[in-house]
Amino acid sequence: MKFEAVYHRTSDNLCYPINEEDLIINLKTGYDVKKVFIHYGDPFATGILGGNSKWEGTSEEIPFKKRLQHQIWWTTTLKPEFKRCRYYFELANDDETWFYFEDGFINEKQMHIEGKMLQCFTFPWMNSADINNTPAWVNDMVWYQIFTERFCNGDSSINPEGVKPWRTGKVTNKEFYGGDLPGIINKLDYLEELGITGIYLTPIFESVSTHKYDTTDYMKIDPHFGDKEVFKTLVNSAHDKGIKIMLDGVFNHCGAKFAPWLDVVENGTDSKYFNWFMVNKWPFDNKGDTKDGRFYSFAFNERMPKLNTNNKEVIDYFIGVCEYWVKNYDIDGIRLDVANEISHKFCKILREKMKEIKPDFYILGEIWHDSISWLKGDEFDAVMNYPLTSSIGDFWIDKSLTKADFECTINRCYTMYMQQNNDVLFNLLDSHDTERLISRVKNINVFYQQLAVLFTMPGSPCIFYGTEIVLEGKHDPDCRRCMPWDEIESGQYDSKINIMKKLIKLRKEEQLFRSRNFHFPNSIKNDRVIEYIKIDEWGNKLEVLLNCSDGIITVDDSNEVLFSNLYSNNRLLKNGVLIRKK
Amino acid sequence: MKFEAVYHRTSDNLCYPINEEDLIINLKTGYDVKKVFIHYGDPFATGILGGNSKWEGTSEEIPFKKRLQHQIWWTTTLKPEFKRCRYYFELANDDETWFYFEDGFINEKQMHIEGKMLQCFTFPWMNSADINNTPAWVNDMVWYQIFTERFCNGDSSINPEGVKPWRTGKVTNKEFYGGDLPGIINKLDYLEELGITGIYLTPIFESVSTHKYDTTDYMKIDPHFGDKEVFKTLVNSAHDKGIKIMLDGVFNHCGAKFAPWLDVVENGTDSKYFNWFMVNKWPFDNKGDTKDGRFYSFAFNERMPKLNTNNKEVIDYFIGVCEYWVKNYDIDGIRLDVANEISHKFCKILREKMKEIKPDFYILGEIWHDSISWLKGDEFDAVMNYPLTSSIGDFWIDKSLTKADFECTINRCYTMYMQQNNDVLFNLLDSHDTERLISRVKNINVFYQQLAVLFTMPGSPCIFYGTEIVLEGKHDPDCRRCMPWDEIESGQYDSKINIMKKLIKLRKEEQLFRSRNFHFPNSIKNDRVIEYIKIDEWGNKLEVLLNCSDGIITVDDSNEVLFSNLYSNNRLLKNGVLIRKK
Repeated sequence: MKFEAVYHRTSDNLCYPINEEDLIINLKTGYDVKKVFIHYGDPFATGILGGNSKWEGTSEEIPFKKRLQHQIWWTTTLKPEFKRCRYYFELANDDETWFYFEDGFINEKQMHIEGKMLQCFTFPWMNSADINNTPAWVNDMVWYQIFTERFCNGDSSINPEGVKPWRTGKVTNKEFYGGDLPGIINKLDYLEELGITGIYLTPIFESVSTHKYDTTDYMKIDPHFGDKEVFKTLVNSAHDKGIKIMLDGVFNHCGAKFAPWLDVVENGTDSKYFNWFMVNKWPFDNKGDTKDGRFYSFAFNERMPKLNTNNKEVIDYFIGVCEYWVKNYDIDGIRLDVANEISHKFCKILREKMKEIKPDFYILGEIWHDSISWLKGDEFDAVMNYPLTSSIGDFWIDKSLTKADFECTINRCYTMYMQQNNDVLFNLLDSHDTERLISRVKNINVFYQQLAVLFTMPGSPCIFYGTEIVLEGKHDPDCRRCMPWDEIESGQYDSKINIMKKLIKLRKEEQLFRSRNFHFPNSIKNDRVIEYIKIDEWGNKLEVLLNCSDGIITVDDSNEVLFSNLYSNNRLLKNGVLIRKK
Repeated sequence: MKFEAVYHRTSDNLCYPINEEDLIINLKTGYDVKKVFIHYGDPFATGILGGNSKWEGTSEEIPFKKRLQHQIWWTTTLKPEFKRCRYYFELANDDETWFYFEDGFINEKQMHIEGKMLQCFTFPWMNSADINNTPAWVNDMVWYQIFTERFCNGDSSINPEGVKPWRTGKVTNKEFYGGDLPGIINKLDYLEELGITGIYLTPIFESVSTHKYDTTDYMKIDPHFGDKEVFKTLVNSAHDKGIKIMLDGVFNHCGAKFAPWLDVVENGTDSKYFNWFMVNKWPFDNKGDTKDGRFYSFAFNERMPKLNTNNKEVIDYFIGVCEYWVKNYDIDGIRLDVANEISHKFCKILREKMKEIKPDFYILGEIWHDSISWLKGDEFDAVMNYPLTSSIGDFWIDKSLTKADFECTINRCYTMYMQQNNDVLFNLLDSHDTERLISRVKNINVFYQQLAVLFTMPGSPCIFYGTEIVLEGKHDPDCRRCMPWDEIESGQYDSKINIMKKLIKLRKEEQLFRSRNFHFPNSIKNDRVIEYIKIDEWGNKLEVLLNCSDGIITVDDSNEVLFSNLYSNNRLLKNGVLIRKK
């Protein structure tokens, strides 16, 4: 047996209660393992620990598995009668059977050595206070990310000085075009008709930049975006249309004009805010990046000094900021910028306080990498799912990858966290921080193939403003172009918008688009044709087919087609996509 | 390459800061991997995430490794200049080189595919508030566990009714012998002379049983043990001798006479304490075990109803209890009984409050299995190291195990948690919950072999009262015999006590006995001879040899012998042990 391939630990996403009744247990083994049994029962069924009674569990085969690149992922759900569960595994390949305990593998004979203590895996108690609860509404969302400065200028009276005329084409980060909150309010009907149900707003608090990730005042709406009254109107109007509002909270760092920072720059260690930041040397000449280490900042940017979220005063201040916007403006969620650099302590207190005020508040972290350390149930509900972005994108970038690779990479994305988090992951193909999708894939049909994947994955999809009109844009700042409303209103983009409306409608109306469960059949013998079937608990099925090969694929007589591109007469052309009932 | 054997995740004990400067990174691979390099650097060295710049780290070979049963454990320590670290691994076996990222393995060619996002591992920021700090003094401790009722009767005026005469030999859990706190005070000189530096007291709060794990009143010393004055004297007298005091806190369940429980039994849902417990059906006839589920209890024992540590009132009450004993009696640590069934929420708040009051307070959980979920830095400092107990014991129980198996099982025990926790693990070979060591191993020489291992392992060793006189005792209740003071005072046990004194003294005086680092040479060609070398940062070495074979082992000319049994003239007999400088 490939012992080195077997992995389980009673923690994190490998063993956890999904609610007060059900305990999910996952195990990885090598591909040589053919059958897995779990032996489980109450730890005290035969007496107390350390005593001299022999404990034996009930045995049950684990039927469900997923394929990972080099391992099989086995998964089962148990219902421990008394909320406690002790267990071990029995693994069989073609030749041998081994029993897998915390301290390793033993054979049948060793199982019965007198005096040997069997180091069973144990999930000791399913405490309600520790269950990882995420807001149920998020899985139903279709998010729309708005970069306010470039979305719509609705009130020219609050234009920044030197505002440029609204334009199509390239922009820089220094140019202001006057996009604002009244502009968003003006376009709520458009967004409602598009079908989106949640808006993720990049920062709107006062700041000197166009992107506003360098906050000057966390208690004030940027005056070029509007004021608190306008913001209240925006939230209320959105809520009236059933649209949720998520703000962007930048608590890893502030802007260079944040009053406490100005005080520190001036007064150094005498400032009562000195420990709000991470200053290593004072006084300093604040010119050039911070690679000299004079103070810590975001990405060495001297205009974005890092906030010391280890400091209780800082924690209290920013939790207060969040409380203010949730309590007074009823926002529905917050996306934490550079969430991975903030202290876990801050994140834990934030969660506790926010969920007290609004139990179904959504807390989303901007983390680009494996985020298990923030998704244990006491910090974030979800993260921006960039691993999914990469996993999808790679298949088109690296032509050597096969449909099996795609299956494994998607399975990886959905075996990293607990199911509760998977259900509310924030799935995206682009954002203000990346190239726009069309500029990356450079092909309108691949663009729709990838969107089809995005819209059929568990979690909640987010499209960046302009994606519905296939807006172009290379890396920052080019991805932040002005939304071309004149052209949109002229009807020039109607056909593109209609495709997006269709996808959004399907996501909302067809439970199978959102559902957790999928598998990858191999019915079409072509390594570059992605196939997967989504299933629900009643056995309904949805088939997704993407032809990424150079040839034409013939498919069997179809059930109801829900969405397609480059498909007709049972022929799925190169770069085509087909989603149908099965 | 055996891809399925490779494992790393940026979390828990695989990647963590040990202080504000040093980041420890551990990786598992198969035995086919011959060299491992880590490529690392600041994530923002070349620009922001999602941007179009290429990031490349600095490359460094990882030299340190340990052998696990089926994998190699590679370990390195980095000093990220700006507290951030992005990294990936380069793995080489005899034939090929692969680069290992979060999403898997890619080859040299794939490393350079245009547009592919490299999913590096990332430890985003070493926040001081999140560093797992454990009390430094614990590693220097030699603990002595006292089961008060059977240790020494120092005040016959507070004897329980029907007390039995102090005796040697077998006892039951129903028989009271009158051991009490004055008895412990009387024996502090004895304990000081023995050399121990910490006392772990099984519960001393009011309770109707001999073991007192069924508390009646958490705010009261059991009247048959003494009162608060006596307890204060005990703590102060111990502190005067440099001996720490750790209490046993039973917060998973209470006793049947705990006032809130009595109120619930009488008033059911009308009781204001109803939600302090986990009652599923009321009224109930409280006869027989709780396998009928009428309420949840410890180990189905109807006299030990489970406390609902998910309930904020319960949390507040018991945190208050702990605060009281720490603030007023200056206790040094607490051992939490059945710690694994208490809510994590409770444990987190307990840690926060206790460390506020006494920053170097020691929080120890009674957990018998893998405890990583409690040792992330925000709950316990350590757990009772039963996995080590089993790992040591198994070698003598299962004669098919080789010295390589021993090496791997010990390495497993010390690669499960962060180094900070390993340093303060509570190592034991027996307790009030197990057979006594001599009764398990049934051989006085094996007894000393196992003690030699206990005393040379990282963590802090604990001996159960009576171990110094090789006290016998099968499983509970037999392991709770009366301490034979008459015989001790007659000098009958002097030679045994002297051996224990020697071990304790060595543990305290020789830093190498306590140190973190050890390796397993293979200089003696005999699968049943355990050899390991402990080393310190200055290169000093200690050799530990255990002859578990049936023959005699000849060793080279010896350096200074620190401890031995069945050793002379360079010959280590069967069941002998030798500890010497190297």
